[in-house]
Amino acid sequence: MSPRPGPRERSIASREDGASAQGAAAVMAGGPQISRLLARTEQRLAEIAQGHGQELGAHATQTLTAGGKRLRPLLVFLSAGDRDSDRRVSAESAGDRDSDRLVSAAVAVELVHTATLVHDDVLDRAAMRRGRPTVFEGAGRGVATATGDLLFSRAFSELAEAGDPAAMRALSAAATALARGELMQRADAWSATVSAERYLERCELKTARLFEASCRLGAILGSLDAGPGAEQALALFGMRIGIAFQIFDDVLDVSGPLVHTGKHRGADLLDGTVTLPLILARERDIALGEIDLRAVGSRQAAVDALCERIESSGALGRARAHALSYVAEAKAALAEVALGDSRRDALELVADGVVERYG
Amino acid sequence: MSPRPGPRERSIASREDGASAQGAAAVMAGGPQISRLLARTEQRLAEIAQGHGQELGAHATQTLTAGGKRLRPLLVFLSAGDRDSDRRVSAESAGDRDSDRLVSAAVAVELVHTATLVHDDVLDRAAMRRGRPTVFEGAGRGVATATGDLLFSRAFSELAEAGDPAAMRALSAAATALARGELMQRADAWSATVSAERYLERCELKTARLFEASCRLGAILGSLDAGPGAEQALALFGMRIGIAFQIFDDVLDVSGPLVHTGKHRGADLLDGTVTLPLILARERDIALGEIDLRAVGSRQAAVDALCERIESSGALGRARAHALSYVAEAKAALAEVALGDSRRDALELVADGVVERYG
Repeated sequence: MSPRPGPRERSIASREDGASAQGAAAVMAGGPQISRLLARTEQRLAEIAQGHGQELGAHATQTLTAGGKRLRPLLVFLSAGDRDSDRRVSAESAGDRDSDRLVSAAVAVELVHTATLVHDDVLDRAAMRRGRPTVFEGAGRGVATATGDLLFSRAFSELAEAGDPAAMRALSAAATALARGELMQRADAWSATVSAERYLERCELKTARLFEASCRLGAILGSLDAGPGAEQALALFGMRIGIAFQIFDDVLDVSGPLVHTGKHRGADLLDGTVTLPLILARERDIALGEIDLRAVGSRQAAVDALCERIESSGALGRARAHALSYVAEAKAALAEVALGDSRRDALELVADGVVERYG
Repeated sequence: MSPRPGPRERSIASREDGASAQGAAAVMAGGPQISRLLARTEQRLAEIAQGHGQELGAHATQTLTAGGKRLRPLLVFLSAGDRDSDRRVSAESAGDRDSDRLVSAAVAVELVHTATLVHDDVLDRAAMRRGRPTVFEGAGRGVATATGDLLFSRAFSELAEAGDPAAMRALSAAATALARGELMQRADAWSATVSAERYLERCELKTARLFEASCRLGAILGSLDAGPGAEQALALFGMRIGIAFQIFDDVLDVSGPLVHTGKHRGADLLDGTVTLPLILARERDIALGEIDLRAVGSRQAAVDALCERIESSGALGRARAHALSYVAEAKAALAEVALGDSRRDALELVADGVVERYG
């Protein structure tokens, strides 16, 4: 019956770590070119952090350079096709235009992602992320809000370098969706009547649209020459694994932390975020629908009891099944694209990675 | 010795109102085409507010549709040239591509501006703006932060419609500068050692770069065919009037509110924002440099006394002179551009407008 420990930690680190072990396998499967592009992305992010060093301060620099496993950049590169990979690998050392554009896009999606994390930490008053103090904790609300705005703007500056209007449309649409999803989450907080459909729409906006944009950017800027349907199919792939990713994250919130996470079980529920496990559990356990999340209190024992009640309704297994069906749809979408085998294998590994670690 | 009244009001309303009376004259001088383009901008902003109606909520919709005098959109249109205005006016009713792009750009700069206002209100805990409750006051910190992010993202979506990479670069550079300026302001808060040079750099980042981008967007997307130097000259014009605009706003903070503003004298100083009047006053009145702004307290009488001490040093007149020299530089930059007379007259009216109302 001990109270929950002090500083809030966010869950992103853990789920990204999980997905990224699979991500590492995907990098291997994708070939040496992918590793090189990821290394260039890392270098560019470090340059951006350094270029704004004084303004961003130590905390933001750490957030930008030391965090995350670059799942979204990986999707950009894997969606860019490999038909002429040999040519591109050799040309790449000369800094050819194609790979420059892909790296710009990868940096841009990672910057948008990081910007939303920095803002989320302000809103949630989160003290720690990825084992480090958040910008909010280290520098306060004002600096953290402006830091998020800066990272966000830099994302569009980076992508502007690629000089492709369709790419700009894809990223700005995803960024708009992210903010809409955030507003939707706030509108639905503590609600006893959120439907599964509305939950899935929120997942799409808050999470999946940036995955979708990552794939779309790769298809637009890459050398894939696989017919007009390729961009659409890859976009669908990204959308589906994005939704699966979010569902599994929400399952993890209820099923309990992995050994290596610093996250407390039920943390999202305690914040009033109504997720699929609770929605599905309410269908079977009517009385659960009458529990006011606000009344649960913050003692870990009470939160654990709620999570166990959700689990005993079978909702976690049903939620996992939903996520797996999205992964299957994602893989099916790939069948439409004339990808090389190594890219297809790698993308399938990413798709499995967003769910298997917690299966 | 009465304490300062309750809810904070922001100064933007007053300064924009001031500038906009002159703006109305500029619209007249610019010709019927300008009024039409501004009306289309207004309509598009209303559509955006409506399109996100449920999410944005009433407060954000009001902020977007009822506020401001569209000074930045006006700069876009006036910088777009009028050599072939007759052709364009007639084609405009058919929704021609040129004017569509200009309206997209105008909407985009206004959205970026509005997004920063919404975020500023969160950071300053401002209750009122333009005589209405702020998003922060009406819907809370979380919704206001996400609303700012949404407006910001929509700005890039709008501009992406114009399909011009150079335009995207201009806007994203300005948005990045805005955030850098905000971070700089926070880093320098309460400082006794901010130099005039550093203050001017902050003005450039926080205010002038978006004016510059507005002019640049007009030049890039408009029909101006005035040689390669035209964009650069118009950009310089925008930068210079932006700095003048900010200096005069800071003078107004110390000189006291106009009759129709809801702003309290010295409000920026009380927030720890060190502005040119204080910097210049410290040069003449050494003891003023030793006053800790934090120690002034929030009683209006104490704040008034500080403002009067700054004024009696002659700093306000010197600050005004600085601003007027920036306006003169702005007008000189226009000499480089083969603008039509009506556009030149209109831009000069805008330049005078950012300072004359408070001269």
